[in-house]
Amino acid sequence: MTTVESGKLVRTQGVTGPLGFRAAGIAAGIKASGNPDLALVFSEGPDYAAAGVFTRNQVKAAPVLWSQQVLSSGRLRAVILNSGGANACTGPGGFQDTHRTAEELATALSNWGTETGAGEIAVCSTGLIGDRLPMDKLIPAVTEIVHEMGGGLSGGLDAAYAIMTTDTVPKEAAFHHNDKWNVGGMAKGAGMLAPSLATMLVVLTTDARATPEQLDQALRNATRLTFDRLDVDGSCSTNDTVLLLANGASAVTPSQAELDAAVLAVCDDLATQLMADAEGITKRVLVTVTGALTEDEALIAARAVARDSLVKTALFGSDPNWGRVLAAVGIAPITLDPNRISVSFNGNSVCVDGVGAPGAREVDLSGMDIEVRIALNVGDGSATIRTTDLSHGYVEENSAYSS
Amino acid sequence: MTTVESGKLVRTQGVTGPLGFRAAGIAAGIKASGNPDLALVFSEGPDYAAAGVFTRNQVKAAPVLWSQQVLSSGRLRAVILNSGGANACTGPGGFQDTHRTAEELATALSNWGTETGAGEIAVCSTGLIGDRLPMDKLIPAVTEIVHEMGGGLSGGLDAAYAIMTTDTVPKEAAFHHNDKWNVGGMAKGAGMLAPSLATMLVVLTTDARATPEQLDQALRNATRLTFDRLDVDGSCSTNDTVLLLANGASAVTPSQAELDAAVLAVCDDLATQLMADAEGITKRVLVTVTGALTEDEALIAARAVARDSLVKTALFGSDPNWGRVLAAVGIAPITLDPNRISVSFNGNSVCVDGVGAPGAREVDLSGMDIEVRIALNVGDGSATIRTTDLSHGYVEENSAYSS
Repeated sequence: MTTVESGKLVRTQGVTGPLGFRAAGIAAGIKASGNPDLALVFSEGPDYAAAGVFTRNQVKAAPVLWSQQVLSSGRLRAVILNSGGANACTGPGGFQDTHRTAEELATALSNWGTETGAGEIAVCSTGLIGDRLPMDKLIPAVTEIVHEMGGGLSGGLDAAYAIMTTDTVPKEAAFHHNDKWNVGGMAKGAGMLAPSLATMLVVLTTDARATPEQLDQALRNATRLTFDRLDVDGSCSTNDTVLLLANGASAVTPSQAELDAAVLAVCDDLATQLMADAEGITKRVLVTVTGALTEDEALIAARAVARDSLVKTALFGSDPNWGRVLAAVGIAPITLDPNRISVSFNGNSVCVDGVGAPGAREVDLSGMDIEVRIALNVGDGSATIRTTDLSHGYVEENSAYSS
Repeated sequence: MTTVESGKLVRTQGVTGPLGFRAAGIAAGIKASGNPDLALVFSEGPDYAAAGVFTRNQVKAAPVLWSQQVLSSGRLRAVILNSGGANACTGPGGFQDTHRTAEELATALSNWGTETGAGEIAVCSTGLIGDRLPMDKLIPAVTEIVHEMGGGLSGGLDAAYAIMTTDTVPKEAAFHHNDKWNVGGMAKGAGMLAPSLATMLVVLTTDARATPEQLDQALRNATRLTFDRLDVDGSCSTNDTVLLLANGASAVTPSQAELDAAVLAVCDDLATQLMADAEGITKRVLVTVTGALTEDEALIAARAVARDSLVKTALFGSDPNWGRVLAAVGIAPITLDPNRISVSFNGNSVCVDGVGAPGAREVDLSGMDIEVRIALNVGDGSATIRTTDLSHGYVEENSAYSS
């Protein structure tokens, strides 16, 4: 539990941390393993404001196309998520499957007592690209999961379990504001814009009162600083989705700044959990670039280093090979002066003004956490990317696992 | 031996294939292993025309800065190359070491009977970034190697051996034109602009008569189509250098088109050899994009796929995971229509118009050679990138080997 001035952050609660949200996770039989693979997040209202951020990949999965369309209304009553299949590159038939899933859920929720339209339901999928979903299993499970919805915390945890693919642990976080309103969230995968394997999915909930525009601003601000700066392997999924639902159940209307801070706190914690559980990880790596001409250039440079296979393999080997860091920075399309670059590993100076520092080859990087700091000394821009090493485990998992 | 209309390509000869070039390779003691680590290529004239292409990395090694300066005259009499140290990120002292190496070689060549200035000598280095070269070992070796220079083919082979770092075999090729002039070359490393480990170095020689401008055109044309399209891991060295020396010893003046074709043939063959010997390789992969809006966009798309860690690990696992190819293409900043993309693996259709083809998951990729063809169907641009898989061997070599 992290206590800050305005409230407390906990990892024992997720999407059902805020008031007036129900959730569930069940095994629909999509995964061959029989593990849970279908999750539902449901808002009891009274408001149904929502915002979303989606993958920038031009190849977008059917559920992304559907949910983008639904979100144009700024309104969501429920999110249905499946693991075990991405429903990407599945053509018009795949889109019809997504549409039908939303329709079936709308009917089930209406029969259950809450009049709901398919246009109020977002759909998320994650798993192998290219195969149609087993609708014969999915459709009955959509009705079943409505009856499983719990209002307590276990519903949120069940949902967090059901969206896992290669994740080894569920990821939840909730922020309780001192003024009696809350933001909760769950996540799977390993990185927005640059996730490992198929997808990063995040659902955030809040019982604050907020307009779709306020939610959109809070969400874009938070993803820019958290999931956008988590880069495991530079790949970008067809299915990445981050949703934020607000139901106003707390009856509190926070300021934009308060809302921004709370959403950022939950996203930042979920991003930390995603990095810690990334595939094949043996090192948690922070790459910070300071003194760039602009924040954007700092980000480009940090991302170039975080994506460099030679830097990542050196870190896997606990090798303080700072020359590879300079070579990686040098190909970033930014303003720099090779003779003014300084680098430190975990606070130990390894390169000063473009030249090796005494003792640089002896820096001990055998621990799990490595901070790479690169000072360009040409301006005031700075940015940090969270990444991992490139290990045998990464190669093993991604060559042996088809997803 | 490859016979084409205009001549023959052989791999048994390198830089001393053309008339009037001498070369040598010796162990100067720079490498701890005691293996050969110093090479010399020397032109007997009568011409000394030359051109060069260098790394685009903003962090450039001292020998690159030196050789770029020397090449501004369009004239070279000799190239001295060392492995065992990149002399990059070594500050003003490192540049002085390069300058001194050229001065010492000029003196040694002059004493040997060929009046030579340091400004006629290019210097290349490859190995670990960040350490100063052991000048106490290098300087006496520079005089020694002048006396070792052979005019026969063994001199070229010795030189090709001495520039190796993680290469397992030396790389040589020579093209003998029917009109009695020749182009020869040697190479080390694994990729221009995107080499594995420290560096790609290539020295090309020809006994044709050509101006520096003609050589520059032939060289830029050839590197654009060969080394620039070899991409092992997306990294880019501080030391990459490709040099072409022409001494006119054949007294033949080929047309620009003939020169272009011969230089391209040698570069293409050396690029093939570099790919085949890339670190940790278990698959030789060609990624071809057709039907892009332009050749540039085809190249961007092919490079995006060739650099994608998830595609490369899937190929290591012989997994026909075409969804990862679509996800990789989808993040390339190019014009595309997701519903018109088709993909084949080794001629087997796996995706048609953005949707999986029947039998796609059963395509056998267990062989060493894999051709990935991606048809975008939006234009006429096409391009091919040569790459490799991402294997345990790659991780092992780059985490255990400090270079």
